[in-house]
Amino acid sequence: MDKDAPLDYEYPDLDPLPDKIESETIPPCDPTADDMLYHICITAISLVVMLILAILARRTKAGNRQKGLPGLLSPVNFLDHTQHKGLAVAVFGVLLCKLWGLLISPNPLPFTTDTNNKQNWVILGVFYYPALYYPLLACGTLHNKVGYVLGSLLSWTHFGVLVWQKIDCPKTALIHKYYSLFSSLPQIACLAFLSFQYPLYLFKGLKGTEKTNATEDLSSSYYRDYVKKMLNEKKSSKIGASSTDKPKLPQKIVDAVKSYVYTPEDAFRFPLKLAISAVVSIITLFQMGLLLISAVVPTLQTARYGVDEDIANVLAGFRIMLSPDRREVVRIVVYYMWCVEVCYISAMTLSCLVNLAMLMRSMVLHRSNLKGLYRGDIHNVYNCQRSIRASRPALVCWMGYTSFTAAHVCFGMIIQTLVFFLCLLVAVFLIIMPILHGQNLILFQILLSMWPFWLMILLAVLIQHVTARFCFIKKTAGTRDLDNRGNLFLLTYLMFPVNVLIGVLLAVWRLIISALFNIIHMGRMDISLLNRNVEAFDPAYRCYAHYLKIEVSQSHPVMKAFCGMLLQSVGQGNKAAQGPRDAEEGIQLVQQEKKVHKVSTAKRARRHWQLLYTLVNNPSLVGTRKHFQRQTTESFLNGSLNRSANQGSKKEAEASASN
Amino acid sequence: MDKDAPLDYEYPDLDPLPDKIESETIPPCDPTADDMLYHICITAISLVVMLILAILARRTKAGNRQKGLPGLLSPVNFLDHTQHKGLAVAVFGVLLCKLWGLLISPNPLPFTTDTNNKQNWVILGVFYYPALYYPLLACGTLHNKVGYVLGSLLSWTHFGVLVWQKIDCPKTALIHKYYSLFSSLPQIACLAFLSFQYPLYLFKGLKGTEKTNATEDLSSSYYRDYVKKMLNEKKSSKIGASSTDKPKLPQKIVDAVKSYVYTPEDAFRFPLKLAISAVVSIITLFQMGLLLISAVVPTLQTARYGVDEDIANVLAGFRIMLSPDRREVVRIVVYYMWCVEVCYISAMTLSCLVNLAMLMRSMVLHRSNLKGLYRGDIHNVYNCQRSIRASRPALVCWMGYTSFTAAHVCFGMIIQTLVFFLCLLVAVFLIIMPILHGQNLILFQILLSMWPFWLMILLAVLIQHVTARFCFIKKTAGTRDLDNRGNLFLLTYLMFPVNVLIGVLLAVWRLIISALFNIIHMGRMDISLLNRNVEAFDPAYRCYAHYLKIEVSQSHPVMKAFCGMLLQSVGQGNKAAQGPRDAEEGIQLVQQEKKVHKVSTAKRARRHWQLLYTLVNNPSLVGTRKHFQRQTTESFLNGSLNRSANQGSKKEAEASASN
Repeated sequence: MDKDAPLDYEYPDLDPLPDKIESETIPPCDPTADDMLYHICITAISLVVMLILAILARRTKAGNRQKGLPGLLSPVNFLDHTQHKGLAVAVFGVLLCKLWGLLISPNPLPFTTDTNNKQNWVILGVFYYPALYYPLLACGTLHNKVGYVLGSLLSWTHFGVLVWQKIDCPKTALIHKYYSLFSSLPQIACLAFLSFQYPLYLFKGLKGTEKTNATEDLSSSYYRDYVKKMLNEKKSSKIGASSTDKPKLPQKIVDAVKSYVYTPEDAFRFPLKLAISAVVSIITLFQMGLLLISAVVPTLQTARYGVDEDIANVLAGFRIMLSPDRREVVRIVVYYMWCVEVCYISAMTLSCLVNLAMLMRSMVLHRSNLKGLYRGDIHNVYNCQRSIRASRPALVCWMGYTSFTAAHVCFGMIIQTLVFFLCLLVAVFLIIMPILHGQNLILFQILLSMWPFWLMILLAVLIQHVTARFCFIKKTAGTRDLDNRGNLFLLTYLMFPVNVLIGVLLAVWRLIISALFNIIHMGRMDISLLNRNVEAFDPAYRCYAHYLKIEVSQSHPVMKAFCGMLLQSVGQGNKAAQGPRDAEEGIQLVQQEKKVHKVSTAKRARRHWQLLYTLVNNPSLVGTRKHFQRQTTESFLNGSLNRSANQGSKKEAEASASN
Repeated sequence: MDKDAPLDYEYPDLDPLPDKIESETIPPCDPTADDMLYHICITAISLVVMLILAILARRTKAGNRQKGLPGLLSPVNFLDHTQHKGLAVAVFGVLLCKLWGLLISPNPLPFTTDTNNKQNWVILGVFYYPALYYPLLACGTLHNKVGYVLGSLLSWTHFGVLVWQKIDCPKTALIHKYYSLFSSLPQIACLAFLSFQYPLYLFKGLKGTEKTNATEDLSSSYYRDYVKKMLNEKKSSKIGASSTDKPKLPQKIVDAVKSYVYTPEDAFRFPLKLAISAVVSIITLFQMGLLLISAVVPTLQTARYGVDEDIANVLAGFRIMLSPDRREVVRIVVYYMWCVEVCYISAMTLSCLVNLAMLMRSMVLHRSNLKGLYRGDIHNVYNCQRSIRASRPALVCWMGYTSFTAAHVCFGMIIQTLVFFLCLLVAVFLIIMPILHGQNLILFQILLSMWPFWLMILLAVLIQHVTARFCFIKKTAGTRDLDNRGNLFLLTYLMFPVNVLIGVLLAVWRLIISALFNIIHMGRMDISLLNRNVEAFDPAYRCYAHYLKIEVSQSHPVMKAFCGMLLQSVGQGNKAAQGPRDAEEGIQLVQQEKKVHKVSTAKRARRHWQLLYTLVNNPSLVGTRKHFQRQTTESFLNGSLNRSANQGSKKEAEASASN
């Protein structure tokens, strides 16, 4: 082989482009729509919008709607599976992008250019932005044409000004010239969605096709559909279970791949908080990826373009002689730096893909966990028996869940990129490059020189497996038992030292496996990174477990279907009064109901029968009945116990409902 | 404050002792008992001993003992809970020490000084040493006075020569002058134990007080005692369970500490393999600790003693100016190096202590796992339903378990020392030293300058907890429910950006927790380092799970007690024939038994009744009966299924036995 030609091939001529070396200087750009002026105006407008909405809400409350002002103060019902999730998701997306800008940009708030107290401005911004975008959510709450008009105007303004600013000043000096532009893309998308959604609502409202009932939680048909679907499914799954045997390997692989692909199901809708979490995770992935790329790659490229023949002197200072020819040295160094760049970009891409796959897997797991808890399979989900009910830590975790998801994805991605980058560097410079160029085969030489060791390990493993299979296990009458115990013990004794060496390899493998698993799953909150006995010490998993508790205890579809049916029957009874619209009101209504004595005898009989049926099938409910509690104080003490049993009996109730 | 006085105090005068700088040269030392000659002799002696034993075994077989030659080939019954474990444990200890020496020493085998082919000599040694120490085990197998005499002589020779060599040449040039001496301490201890144990057996044999039956597995009273204890325990635990309520925090802490302290129980004996594993782990800990100390600390000390005023010039080359005074610079550098040394020794000690605690905890867990599996609590131990029976991978894992334990402890200790060392370095140089000397408080300054951020985080967390406790959760009739949903949703929305920041802290905490947990538990095979759903991917845990399978399926105390009782009744029947002595023989005997038609009618009736009783209580056993299998081939196909059910029904059988 010609030794000169391959060298040219080995280190391809990635010559620096001299005209690119001097970095482009970006002139400071003031957009026509000045950020400070715009924020002052939009804050004022938002205030006015909120005032108008408040006045509207007061009037509406006097009218036929019961929501009014309190509804305006809680524009998003996180415990609702049926509402249109678009508005809330989009607003959370905008908020996340703003938070990101707040942390990255040297001027966190548009009102000031004081960079010394950045920290204080960040803290202010953290509370300012949620307030700023609050009207965007609130406008949709009243289901009122005026609200929709205001919402459309507000979202158009936000959207228009942002797009205008970005067209005016596409390049900024921050991190990378286009970083700011790309970073605002998700924000633009979310605002565009809002600008499109509000007019759509308005249009539907004008045409009268907006189903006002469809937006109400309890009167939605979803919960009843869920119960029906579930009862149908159960039968089919029972039939399926009896026909399935042990799955074969290809089937297992297909199942494993399927468990990573989320396919929507008709009979199941995600809670709003999970939907927001998913979108927030994707936006975080995008922003983090953008930051990782634009903060590092341009620097690496600049360094690569800046390599000239002086590098040979610098390397000689460290006594590294890559080649006697100085041009050759430059070529080799440039090539190595290009490899590092490729490794970094690959690591970042890999991390993104891994996180996307994990997100999909999370969605599948969320669904199965929620369904499991609805069914009462607490032990399967939590690996221990827990009471599913609201508590202080559970509520705090529930409140923070969406945010924590975003933070974990962000942190996980940093760690992953770092680790993957190091692994790829090792792989490229110790394995791939030596193989490609046929030199510096240090690793292979070491491994090759150890061939007697590897052979011994291999033989020892083989001998143990073969003898175990053919000498020490006998099959008699379909059962397996030990045979030749004496020889087995002898072999065990003789193999003791060899097995110690095999054990060291196993330990290394264990370290790699566990580190890799934990790093890959760092961004996921729905599984614990710890051993099953100490799962709860993993703060992320603990939070997820608590989140699930609140979600299941407060928005169990079967409970909601039941509440809906109850309210419907009440609504039929006194049509004059407007039907209540959420679970809380429903529960209050049921409590007041007893005082209404206009109920007919037939209805009362029906209710008594329903009550009896429920109590027979859920004996644990007896303890929480009113007169029962008056009779004994014991029931109060055992309340928690009853409550937990109560949760378990939901499954029973479902089963009995099918009878 | 005087600024000069503290400096003297801060960097204490750890002046190098100049007479210690030149390292002691250790002259090559040839012990009077030359290692090569000794090994040739002892190999020959061992061969002769084995020949004598074989002849003895042949004669004994013709006599009243049934073990004979096969017994000689399997001197240690790993599936035996009752035999005296000392001999086997001591021999394994000696073997491990030899393996250690093999890997560390430049001359692995005494027959050669060829250091070029060290690898091949190691491979040879790995098989040579088990063979060399084999007679030490085999001498105790025959329960014969001649065997004991030979064993005593052999162990005395081994012990005497080793001690003689160490007295002759206490210092070697290997690693550290006393490394070789300390490293052989466990070996000396094990050999001393053997030298004491064999004469003891001989003495007992001469006096006739040796209970020959006590060494036999099935005729031991342990299994019957176990069953009795277990049945008694069940009642008491049932009484205990009803009286216990939810444990308080102090009780929980006491329980947690107790779960790390192993207290022996009368009614439970460890399987031999676990006992060997424990001792092997301790020896590995000792050897590893010794190696870590003697390989690093003397080097650090030499470096510290070698620091002179030139160091100021070297540091100036890196533009580090510690002090204008050269003597002061030396003092500071020496002090820093002394700190590094202290950190390293502390890290090593910590790692040793952690591993000891983990070993204790493992013993507790082994016992509870074994007891759980004996009871049939497969799901609790494995977190899934598995069939407990011998299989190829299970057998291979069982064979290697002891060795793998040693390897994992060794590897775990290296990783732990490394990580603890780094953590301690960071802690000492960033936290403790700055506090002590009141300078370089960089970390504290950063943290302090971020006080508004910490305050915000703290307030946000507090607000969420307080509102969750007092505003959003209402207690009615002993149950808890959400209250003020509207405000809860509003707070959740407003806190979204703050919670993202809190989430980042949580993610960091998660990383630290999971890394620390995995590193601390790296040396333990009885827990998986992975999430509960993928536990089996952890090779160490997988091996442990398989090991337990074999141990439980082959040496279930209740089964052994049952076999022992069966054999006793047979022994009563035909006293002329000598009673069989291990499970395998027992099973064969039971199979042959049917051909013996001398059984009286009463006995046959009793057996029929016993059979019927067993089958009624264990319906799954029906499928494995002989005539049932002839009738249908289906039972053969379902064999595995029956077998697994069979395992589960042991619990039933135990329960029914108490009726």
